[in-house]
Amino acid sequence: MIDDPGYATISELTDAYRARTLSPVEAVEACLARIDAVEPVVNAWVTVDRAGALEGARAATAALTSGELVGPLHGIPVGIKDLTETAGLRTTFGSTLYRDHVPTDDELVVARLRAAGAIILGKTNTPEFGTGSNTFNDVAGATRNPYDPRRTCGGSSGGSAVALATGTCTICEGSDLGGSLRTPAAFSNVVGFRTTPGLVPMWPDPSPWEGLAVTGPMARTVADVAHMLASIAGADPRVPLSYPVDGSTFIDAARHPTVRGLRVAFSPDLGGVLDVDPEISEICRSAASSFARLGATVVEDSPDLRGVREIIRATRGASMVAAHAERVERHAAVLQPGLVWNVQQGLALTSPEVAAATQLRGALWSRVAAFMQRYDLLICPTTAVLPFPVEEPYPTVVGREVMEDYTHWFRLTYALTLTTLPVLAVPAGFSRSGMPVGLQIAGRLRDEVGVLRAGAALEAETGFWRQRPPL
Amino acid sequence: MIDDPGYATISELTDAYRARTLSPVEAVEACLARIDAVEPVVNAWVTVDRAGALEGARAATAALTSGELVGPLHGIPVGIKDLTETAGLRTTFGSTLYRDHVPTDDELVVARLRAAGAIILGKTNTPEFGTGSNTFNDVAGATRNPYDPRRTCGGSSGGSAVALATGTCTICEGSDLGGSLRTPAAFSNVVGFRTTPGLVPMWPDPSPWEGLAVTGPMARTVADVAHMLASIAGADPRVPLSYPVDGSTFIDAARHPTVRGLRVAFSPDLGGVLDVDPEISEICRSAASSFARLGATVVEDSPDLRGVREIIRATRGASMVAAHAERVERHAAVLQPGLVWNVQQGLALTSPEVAAATQLRGALWSRVAAFMQRYDLLICPTTAVLPFPVEEPYPTVVGREVMEDYTHWFRLTYALTLTTLPVLAVPAGFSRSGMPVGLQIAGRLRDEVGVLRAGAALEAETGFWRQRPPL
Repeated sequence: MIDDPGYATISELTDAYRARTLSPVEAVEACLARIDAVEPVVNAWVTVDRAGALEGARAATAALTSGELVGPLHGIPVGIKDLTETAGLRTTFGSTLYRDHVPTDDELVVARLRAAGAIILGKTNTPEFGTGSNTFNDVAGATRNPYDPRRTCGGSSGGSAVALATGTCTICEGSDLGGSLRTPAAFSNVVGFRTTPGLVPMWPDPSPWEGLAVTGPMARTVADVAHMLASIAGADPRVPLSYPVDGSTFIDAARHPTVRGLRVAFSPDLGGVLDVDPEISEICRSAASSFARLGATVVEDSPDLRGVREIIRATRGASMVAAHAERVERHAAVLQPGLVWNVQQGLALTSPEVAAATQLRGALWSRVAAFMQRYDLLICPTTAVLPFPVEEPYPTVVGREVMEDYTHWFRLTYALTLTTLPVLAVPAGFSRSGMPVGLQIAGRLRDEVGVLRAGAALEAETGFWRQRPPL
Repeated sequence: MIDDPGYATISELTDAYRARTLSPVEAVEACLARIDAVEPVVNAWVTVDRAGALEGARAATAALTSGELVGPLHGIPVGIKDLTETAGLRTTFGSTLYRDHVPTDDELVVARLRAAGAIILGKTNTPEFGTGSNTFNDVAGATRNPYDPRRTCGGSSGGSAVALATGTCTICEGSDLGGSLRTPAAFSNVVGFRTTPGLVPMWPDPSPWEGLAVTGPMARTVADVAHMLASIAGADPRVPLSYPVDGSTFIDAARHPTVRGLRVAFSPDLGGVLDVDPEISEICRSAASSFARLGATVVEDSPDLRGVREIIRATRGASMVAAHAERVERHAAVLQPGLVWNVQQGLALTSPEVAAATQLRGALWSRVAAFMQRYDLLICPTTAVLPFPVEEPYPTVVGREVMEDYTHWFRLTYALTLTTLPVLAVPAGFSRSGMPVGLQIAGRLRDEVGVLRAGAALEAETGFWRQRPPL
């Protein structure tokens, strides 16, 4: 018997559906009721598709009654980030320019979720065009942290993280260039998985070889992330970086949690990439101890990430210009200043600067590749700071460091992006002030399975995911 | 009984080794004798490692005698392009700056060939740093076409193609950015396979996410290309674009040649990318007829490749600056003018130009992806012209078109590079003047197997590969 369907796991819902102790209609109704209860406080959803979700739930319920073959996510309520297009369902990109935009087609990840049987509840909030790591915009306002609504939920998949933390749905889609699946997961005590570029194919995609931005799964548990990933990963002939994969290996990994015998590097600050809050370092250190207790050999060590600043500047600048230069030229006055600034930085990039960044990234990778020959996993904090006041676009100072720009404060996540290693962001504990703290678990190249096993092991050992926000 | 080991296939050599009718020492001695006979005319090899090859051959012979387990390329003589580093064996990159450079380590592809049992005969000629598609430099001079030594062999893997065509080895390593495995294959009646970036991992690689340059196999037959590919393909933890693959599928593909039931698009000029020599169009049209005879549905059709010029300019410029800007600054006087020009073009690139090229490439790919949903294969000529005089750095006029720069004339190959589809270059016949003509067979995303099957089917049907140069 499920008390609270909005907080149930995929397995719990699926078992209850099979046992007829709960129907998809009841689950969706419970989620919608929960949205009504918590939205006034947190504002995670830009658009809720009550009619569409209930219609989908009725069809899902009927399919179960008639004994049809159903997909692996049959009747599972899902939230889609408002950067990702959904057929017939408003998608604003967090921009007033798209306030009334209703796409005609689903993006591929949405189509795969629907094909697996998931029920789309609506669209979750994001900063304008996903730029930045604090979820606010002029369409929907700010999304607030459920553990303290005066604080930010991070971003850019902030709405998705908060929708999960508040028990309004089971899984959410998010995306990640500099940490957008991971930072909000950390700030809301949920799980976000940045996987290898191409594993979850993106289509349409105006820059199909860009190779840094990814879409991916978010959920409250590692097992649910694995279930969602199994349904959205795998080759598509329109996506050049995509490749075939057996999705069941992800589900198996979550079912067999272990780090026994692994070599794990724990880095409290990725070699000084940021001046990490000592309380966060200590909480992540205790996660490292959990790994040791579970049979891993844990060593404090970090790869040398020299050049991260220059590489971010060049790669971000190039992709921002490709994606937004025309828009900024025509609409600078109504766009978020951070986005305009980013495009201006990109337009100023010179060919030698880009080439220098390419060389720096190659050299960085050589060092990281050698490091990951010595370790199975690299673990480190997801963020350097606790959730900051929701009114601040970004922290201008982190520890003893003044931030250079609005991307600086999330360099712990952005640095790992540049390696293209899979990185799972999981709950690591809580601060004395009651705010969630996150841990990144980076694995070897394309080793999503190893990362999921480790994340599930930590989750089972610590159980932080069970601690719900006081809402 | 093998008359001429230098012209034997891998299977013939392997069978003869097993039957003790030929030893690796005898095979290598035959190749070295053949090198002595033809090198004065064609000049394919920059460095021949007689001592090392004979030592390897003696060890290979001993291993067979003692019944050791041996690798899939045991005792197979291979040539390595002089752009690819070989431990202890001079590697000049075709540049006087590296005239005496002896690397300390094998690049990964070389290490894999050695591990599979291949015997390295030496280094094959290439233009300076591989730039351009005519094989000449100030270290070794020009490599000549074995079908007419007054003409070029193309490039940049020109030495490898000619080494194969003249029966001096069994397989060769080459590389391809704009067509360097394919143009020389076409000009010397051999096979070159540009596979998906990452399938054959490159290490070390200063730009591991560049995603356009590849290393790959060359041979006289599709089956030999498949055998070589099986030994060099597959994941390496240091190569982020690499991915796991079952190499035996390539060998199986060549063993089961077929195009029956496939939909094949034949394009005589890739939609007007170049003004193709009508004799070449006709020869490729007859290859298309062969596919029809073999049971494929062949339709004359082409994807819309608008934007190729701008995309080449931006992607090539960016990688040339990353790879060579510092060198050009210090040594412009002694470097090939084409390389200097390329770097200068790259340095002049602006951020909006690069962004525009990114958008053009995304749009081009959307059209190609839709096209390849309708067809299993796209076939077209490898080159627009027959081999030109060896003294000409590149053709300044092709058909009715004046070439814009030294990369323009090989745009039929470069255009397909930009799609990252696998492209096999195979013999298609001979001109009235007796010069070889090549066909490109492009397959669906990551479908090397389909491309190998088709290439092997055409080869079995036409048999052009058996026609040796008059040397």
